[in-house]
Amino acid sequence: MDEKISEAVVRRLPKYYRYLSDLDALGVERISSSAMSKGMSLNASQIRRDLNCFGGFGQQGYGYSVKSLKQEIMHILGIDKAYHVVIIGSGNIGQALAFYKNFALEGYIIKAIFDVDSNRIGKKINNIEVLSMNDLETYLKTENIHIGILATPKGAAQDVADILIKGGVTGIWNFAPIDVKVPDNAYVENVHLSDGLYVLSYYMQRGRF
Amino acid sequence: MDEKISEAVVRRLPKYYRYLSDLDALGVERISSSAMSKGMSLNASQIRRDLNCFGGFGQQGYGYSVKSLKQEIMHILGIDKAYHVVIIGSGNIGQALAFYKNFALEGYIIKAIFDVDSNRIGKKINNIEVLSMNDLETYLKTENIHIGILATPKGAAQDVADILIKGGVTGIWNFAPIDVKVPDNAYVENVHLSDGLYVLSYYMQRGRF
Repeated sequence: MDEKISEAVVRRLPKYYRYLSDLDALGVERISSSAMSKGMSLNASQIRRDLNCFGGFGQQGYGYSVKSLKQEIMHILGIDKAYHVVIIGSGNIGQALAFYKNFALEGYIIKAIFDVDSNRIGKKINNIEVLSMNDLETYLKTENIHIGILATPKGAAQDVADILIKGGVTGIWNFAPIDVKVPDNAYVENVHLSDGLYVLSYYMQRGRF
Repeated sequence: MDEKISEAVVRRLPKYYRYLSDLDALGVERISSSAMSKGMSLNASQIRRDLNCFGGFGQQGYGYSVKSLKQEIMHILGIDKAYHVVIIGSGNIGQALAFYKNFALEGYIIKAIFDVDSNRIGKKINNIEVLSMNDLETYLKTENIHIGILATPKGAAQDVADILIKGGVTGIWNFAPIDVKVPDNAYVENVHLSDGLYVLSYYMQRGRF
């Protein structure tokens, strides 16, 4: 695999994965890049270029095998294995994520939720224990956690991220409304939900002109 | 304003807005494109090009006025006005969105939540009434709703989107795990939360090699 795959290509891979999963569920076995192009609203030469970044899986005139292309993309994305996850913050976002069924189905196993609120500590959310933030550091010493989901208030996010990283977590999925920083050997994906709403507003305006 | 602003530029605008809002809150009055470049991890010539798409607001050697650039970007995004919003689906995602404080602060006013579950209809979530899905069509005839947030199961999403559009809604923010289609005079922003988690997994893998 080429190590210099551009972020734009990487960010399109989940779209391929979703599209191929839907085809697979519908029993489709082979797909041409021109059919993919229509179905995904991407141009066919871009699709061929994207897939070539990863070695190319098509055969001229035969298209792609849906199942093997899907498997390859899962492998490239690293979603063909299990991840241990903790959620920090049991507010509305933390709870919604704790209840999200697909995570477990896709191998993201939520091991615990951490909170500072003594009314919540000791309870369970969707059968996952809520533990005290004071115990996070110790917890990370004994448990092998790969991903931390930050669903804390803005002010706490960076401190919690630091504790997670120090405890061996290498991936942070951050829902707090502030970009957190991590060292080079870790990775953070900052979620800015409202950005989509702003873009929506932009296009709603434009549609009126 | 140029009508042909590329989607890539439009999708960067919320990032400028957030950055400028943070500067403004910190009391910063002027900012150079090179300082913005550092702060936003974007290259300075790209920042100048982006802002030029909208007529340019900088003065050579003086940089940009934070407040007026922020105002301009809010205006361009169309987030300097009020929108009436309904949420469809009062499950975990619908609830989390109903509780999200920033929406109201930013002019996205949630007027009602709709659900099919008779145990939820008639109750309130964060002081917003939960109404019956059966009443959505009638409701849209009397209320002027701009944006519908879809937080329904996958199978219901397209049908609900059709009802919303028929009722005069022009923007749909879709959290259901399926891309919904809307006519040309409306706009949809499909949210794929898990995509960020997949991209995170990709980079976590890459970091290990």
